[in-house]
Amino acid sequence: MNAAAERLKQLRELMKREKTDMFFIPSSDDHDSEYVAPHDQVREFFSGFTGSAGTLIVTQTEAGLWTDGRYHVQAEKELEGSGIRLYKVGLKDVPSPSEYIKKNLGAGRTLAVNGFVITKKTERMLSEICEDCGASLCLDIDPAHGIWKDRPARPAEPAWRLEECYAGESTAAKLNRLRERMKEEEATAVVIGELESAAWLLNLRGSDITHVPVAMCFVLVTLEDATLFIAPEAVDEKLQADLAQDGIKTAPYEAVYTCFSRFREEDIIWMDSESVNARLYDSALHYAHVYDDTLPIPLWKAVKNETEVANIKKAHIEDAVAMITFLREIKEEFVDGSMTERDVEDRLLKLRSARPGYIDLSFDTISAYGPNAAMMHYSTSETSNATLHAKGFLLVDSGGHYKTGTTDITRTIALGPLTEEERRMYTLTLKGHFQLASAVFREGMTGYGLDILARGPLWEQGVDYLCGTGHGVGYVLSVHEGPNAFRWRLREDADDIVALKPGMITTDEPGVYEEGRYGIRLENELLCVPAMDTVYGRMLKFEPVTYVPFDRDAIDVSLLMPDDIQRIDDYHAFVYHTMKDHLGEKERIWLEQVTRPLVNGE
Amino acid sequence: MNAAAERLKQLRELMKREKTDMFFIPSSDDHDSEYVAPHDQVREFFSGFTGSAGTLIVTQTEAGLWTDGRYHVQAEKELEGSGIRLYKVGLKDVPSPSEYIKKNLGAGRTLAVNGFVITKKTERMLSEICEDCGASLCLDIDPAHGIWKDRPARPAEPAWRLEECYAGESTAAKLNRLRERMKEEEATAVVIGELESAAWLLNLRGSDITHVPVAMCFVLVTLEDATLFIAPEAVDEKLQADLAQDGIKTAPYEAVYTCFSRFREEDIIWMDSESVNARLYDSALHYAHVYDDTLPIPLWKAVKNETEVANIKKAHIEDAVAMITFLREIKEEFVDGSMTERDVEDRLLKLRSARPGYIDLSFDTISAYGPNAAMMHYSTSETSNATLHAKGFLLVDSGGHYKTGTTDITRTIALGPLTEEERRMYTLTLKGHFQLASAVFREGMTGYGLDILARGPLWEQGVDYLCGTGHGVGYVLSVHEGPNAFRWRLREDADDIVALKPGMITTDEPGVYEEGRYGIRLENELLCVPAMDTVYGRMLKFEPVTYVPFDRDAIDVSLLMPDDIQRIDDYHAFVYHTMKDHLGEKERIWLEQVTRPLVNGE
Repeated sequence: MNAAAERLKQLRELMKREKTDMFFIPSSDDHDSEYVAPHDQVREFFSGFTGSAGTLIVTQTEAGLWTDGRYHVQAEKELEGSGIRLYKVGLKDVPSPSEYIKKNLGAGRTLAVNGFVITKKTERMLSEICEDCGASLCLDIDPAHGIWKDRPARPAEPAWRLEECYAGESTAAKLNRLRERMKEEEATAVVIGELESAAWLLNLRGSDITHVPVAMCFVLVTLEDATLFIAPEAVDEKLQADLAQDGIKTAPYEAVYTCFSRFREEDIIWMDSESVNARLYDSALHYAHVYDDTLPIPLWKAVKNETEVANIKKAHIEDAVAMITFLREIKEEFVDGSMTERDVEDRLLKLRSARPGYIDLSFDTISAYGPNAAMMHYSTSETSNATLHAKGFLLVDSGGHYKTGTTDITRTIALGPLTEEERRMYTLTLKGHFQLASAVFREGMTGYGLDILARGPLWEQGVDYLCGTGHGVGYVLSVHEGPNAFRWRLREDADDIVALKPGMITTDEPGVYEEGRYGIRLENELLCVPAMDTVYGRMLKFEPVTYVPFDRDAIDVSLLMPDDIQRIDDYHAFVYHTMKDHLGEKERIWLEQVTRPLVNGE
Repeated sequence: MNAAAERLKQLRELMKREKTDMFFIPSSDDHDSEYVAPHDQVREFFSGFTGSAGTLIVTQTEAGLWTDGRYHVQAEKELEGSGIRLYKVGLKDVPSPSEYIKKNLGAGRTLAVNGFVITKKTERMLSEICEDCGASLCLDIDPAHGIWKDRPARPAEPAWRLEECYAGESTAAKLNRLRERMKEEEATAVVIGELESAAWLLNLRGSDITHVPVAMCFVLVTLEDATLFIAPEAVDEKLQADLAQDGIKTAPYEAVYTCFSRFREEDIIWMDSESVNARLYDSALHYAHVYDDTLPIPLWKAVKNETEVANIKKAHIEDAVAMITFLREIKEEFVDGSMTERDVEDRLLKLRSARPGYIDLSFDTISAYGPNAAMMHYSTSETSNATLHAKGFLLVDSGGHYKTGTTDITRTIALGPLTEEERRMYTLTLKGHFQLASAVFREGMTGYGLDILARGPLWEQGVDYLCGTGHGVGYVLSVHEGPNAFRWRLREDADDIVALKPGMITTDEPGVYEEGRYGIRLENELLCVPAMDTVYGRMLKFEPVTYVPFDRDAIDVSLLMPDDIQRIDDYHAFVYHTMKDHLGEKERIWLEQVTRPLVNGE
């Protein structure tokens, strides 16, 4: 019996004992994290699906896994033999988890979910569904309890502080900003559940989640004091003293669930039901009034300050040295059949980790050859580690954390001859990429209003990519950071639509994913900057902070308009100008070659 | 003393007597109409500003008028000598009416507004501001009462029914659809305050508002019956009998305010606080539970059925015959100084009214020469009626109501030599127009996500137009109809964002408005139609239903990419193909000339 199938069997026995009829198992942790520590990989434990995003729903007779377009192909493979049905989110006629629950739960039944690993908002949504069905919701069961015997402990790695020369703003100043807003909102306290927000506010970093340099913690800020709830072993004496200087006390991680007893009914505790877990939210509700609204921190964090912007450019130059070295090697020296996908990962890791200021990869490198690249977030495994041949595309999506910032870049590389379709799709993806990158727009515009610029050339061909066009990037934090993003589809609540602001960094990564055939993704990071002041208000634009050429061998110039070509040439000239003094001579000469103007050069 | 100043003086005396400190005077009527009958032009009466959109706020010492970019230049002229300050909505640092009230009302003061001419939603917004200020809100005073001596009576023109061959769906079927939705929402009754929704539901038309063929009425629909509240003199015996056949009773217009006494506390009355006036809403609240949500009618109405679509194309062919005749005359026969703006209006009226099925203009023709065209919704007056000369631009925005539909078209015509800037701006406006018109997009996309396609080429130059790119068009109803639109700016609540659906018609009308110099607007109507089915879902696109050429003399081909030129040529070929058999020989030959391909032709 497949491992997942065996575990589901045990879960179903637990469900019988606990008299629950349906179990909802999300991918998250107590902090609504996108990537979670091994301790929290419960959905993966039960399903065998290793992607970062997915929801598992289990009944006595059925099991379904919902995941988005980045993972459709991968999930299909990984779910084989588990008996779990795959629901491909984003495709037509695929019911959402909510719709599935509504249809299958039934009156008098019980839906179970671990209340620590869903947000209060998700709990409300599930409660409403249960109410509509005449069913009940149980928040008290951890499905892994008693089944996951060798479950890893909750991580408690040493935390550390990001010095002000890197953070650009002191913790004191950030706390001050927050307290000013608290006064405006008449809040007694603010509770921060999101790890990246806590890290930003306290200029604190850690290594509790692979490739996300955060520490597992909660933060409680009042007008007078601030408490960091964190595993004691994560904080050494020096850090303790350092935090104390900023007026920050520490308390054990679990103590956050009992910390609200100090508050009274008239106190107002500000937290965001979209990020605070249901159990923590309810424990605050027990003692005080809860003011449920978005915290300002995600938006503050997304707008990089001048120090951060200057540093980020440095990080991208270092990252580009590694990438350009890698690209030159694979474009100039590659021998058919001589490398595997994993060799690419290893080589890039070696190149990146040699760069000054390097801390970690910002996510597992995606090195995907041929059909494997149709899986947006493919990761190689023993069985899938493809050998590279001198034809078709290699897609490499990678990045690093440096003391000066976080990078995220995707290049799709022609290893040899391409099909006409591969060239056409590469070229149209690149056209869309640069249409978005060269947008000029009025202050107040959102990423939602610009998405069509990247997606349009593909939609015209009846092709789409089942994900957003881009996401915000954290500063030595999560490589995926809100609230800025490029997306075309409005979510049900439009809370997440924010205007683009100077200092925000968003990726621009359109792509084409043809199952069983090939995958293309072309990604730069775009810094939002002022363009000009007009009588209508300020105009904004983007400046790429990624300094790496696109593969000219994959471009079919005949499919491009003169303005498309100009944009590519301008970018390449900018890349050469930015990088030429940072490279060894071999790389510099190669870069000069591959960044020459397209029309004159072909 | 200026007439407006004199009237404001009387209003201020009334305010003193009534002990109110600030008067809020919107542009609307009891039905939240955009265009209102002379009886309801109270804001115009007190301010002298004749535009369709504007808000007047009056205190003892100040008076301000807020209007959007379509009217900035016009309002500036019309407010001269009134002592009223103009607030240009859309420009930076201009406070909104709400912000003005917040800043200037003060604790213990009273804000007055006629509760019949604001929606419940607006009343709530004003209430909230008053609460925040510690002020109170008075809904009981009509500011015109006792001051506007010769105020026209409320209109009560004969109403008439649109036959099913025009409407495409019977009233019985529409009522059935509505009642099905009422059952789903568990509503006892629906109240319709919006005139266009009432007209659509009952296939009823009238002529109570200039150029908007509606009858002043309210409709109450229960699961068993339907009541039309309308002036008795508007309904003759034949119409009465006709309505009775569909199960519709009539009652006097004012009786709607007392009709809720038949309901009980457990009844649920569905109405939309965004369109029902505050007094009517409150009178329902007095007796029953109110379910406040958007009605489905505006969306149903916006999606034209097959009969309507087929008819609309006929209407546009008729309209294009008039427009092409007019364009040929002015392009071929115009003699410098021989015509005025008003002559253009007269000529177009004559040409349109000769077309079969013609009912009325769909709005006052805008004929604006030179600097006058910088006023988006300019209308000629005795003093401003400019003489046309053989240079620069004439902007003509016009349309008609036909039994088969409503049209709205703008062409900007070169009467002779243009400046380089005029040609450049015309060309970039046209580029944006066709970028939007040729979009292909996934079902679920909204007009917000596409607006950048039209606006982008102008934003790149630091130029903007202070209005949406386009609006829905009613079917023998208001020429401005929601909920579909092309806009870039998200309003505070995102309720008004709807996905584009096949059958929706939206105008595509980017423009450039340079105060004191020139104005450009290029407008077609776009019908949303399916493009193709893909594995990702259905793709949609647009089909223009306006069949009139753009002025090739104003195009600078050197500013266009080959794809831009192809789009213009394709449209012109389509126009010629559609219209060639409907024109006289002189017009046909001219059309053939002006629709020939740009590149080969120049």
